[in-house]
Amino acid sequence: MNFSSKLIEEAVNAFSALPGIGKKSALRHVLHILQMEENNVTEITSAINRLKSEIQFCKVCHNISDQDTCTICLNQSRDKSIICVVENIRDLMAIENTQHFNGVYHVLGGLISPMEGIGPESLKIDTLLKRIDDQEVNEIIMALSSTIEGDTTLFYISRQIDQDKVKISSIARGIAFGGELEYTDDLTLAKSITNRLPYKNSNL
Amino acid sequence: MNFSSKLIEEAVNAFSALPGIGKKSALRHVLHILQMEENNVTEITSAINRLKSEIQFCKVCHNISDQDTCTICLNQSRDKSIICVVENIRDLMAIENTQHFNGVYHVLGGLISPMEGIGPESLKIDTLLKRIDDQEVNEIIMALSSTIEGDTTLFYISRQIDQDKVKISSIARGIAFGGELEYTDDLTLAKSITNRLPYKNSNL
Repeated sequence: MNFSSKLIEEAVNAFSALPGIGKKSALRHVLHILQMEENNVTEITSAINRLKSEIQFCKVCHNISDQDTCTICLNQSRDKSIICVVENIRDLMAIENTQHFNGVYHVLGGLISPMEGIGPESLKIDTLLKRIDDQEVNEIIMALSSTIEGDTTLFYISRQIDQDKVKISSIARGIAFGGELEYTDDLTLAKSITNRLPYKNSNL
Repeated sequence: MNFSSKLIEEAVNAFSALPGIGKKSALRHVLHILQMEENNVTEITSAINRLKSEIQFCKVCHNISDQDTCTICLNQSRDKSIICVVENIRDLMAIENTQHFNGVYHVLGGLISPMEGIGPESLKIDTLLKRIDDQEVNEIIMALSSTIEGDTTLFYISRQIDQDKVKISSIARGIAFGGELEYTDDLTLAKSITNRLPYKNSNL
């Protein structure tokens, strides 16, 4: 593509770095920004800058947070004895939006994937086990994608936990195989949390 | 949607202002930015800032430009006697990318639309007429959308130009290459039959 302007080209390339944005959409955004009011543009750039400089990760569950502990972990009315283990923050947000879960979360930051060189030590599994040791935890809900990586991670974690003391359950497989949590509709997602199954019974 | 973070919410709202980006894609971009390297993020924000502060519009054709005259108008090898009139910069870029036009452009910045309160005086029609008066112009190609607004604008401009001196033409309407007759609307099909071309001339 010929943009006839170095500035436009640079901006298009910068925008193309975002997920799912190709050159054409990037150009659409860039031309839109050109026509936006100055203060609206400053809103975008300052939001991005503050995002990078001010955001923190919760020291308990690794959720994103404005302070060192997230609002979910600080909330006194939430049941700290049930921990829902998720792959990433998007999945946490998806479950949180169903408003069907009143426990707390633990964000692994990925799934075990030997193909991509991600081993258990790259994930936040040690802090999860420490939480189980230190606190009164009755149940761990594994809300991971139903992929090979998800199942591997589920299996690995289940082996590290004394299942006589802590119940491990997996969200109901109401979600299509290969489907991603993030894009599942709220009802299915809510159902899959309500109908969670003990891990031993969940034969794939 | 509950983002459990004011910073995330602000960034999502800022991104949602871009065309075709809803809350969900905005969130995806925001979480992606969170995981990006610091210098890649700076690239995006500085590109946006420079875009707003440094970009100019060509004083001749109103195309975007890094200087006061755009590279197309400055290019000595381009035929200044043929002006292609387009609605906006995206249309200019689309035609430029075909590499089949060697004249110059004129960006109107919109189309006449009484419904939206856009009259001829809101568009860059006066500078177009001045170009025709001041320079040696043989032909004006009107490359406008075939909508009521496009036709109104075409009609309005054609009335302002002395057609004995300057030829006015409109881009060909017809069935797109690869388009199927069966699914083409009646108007386009009728036009394409009325404006049929001798077989040997139909070379791209």
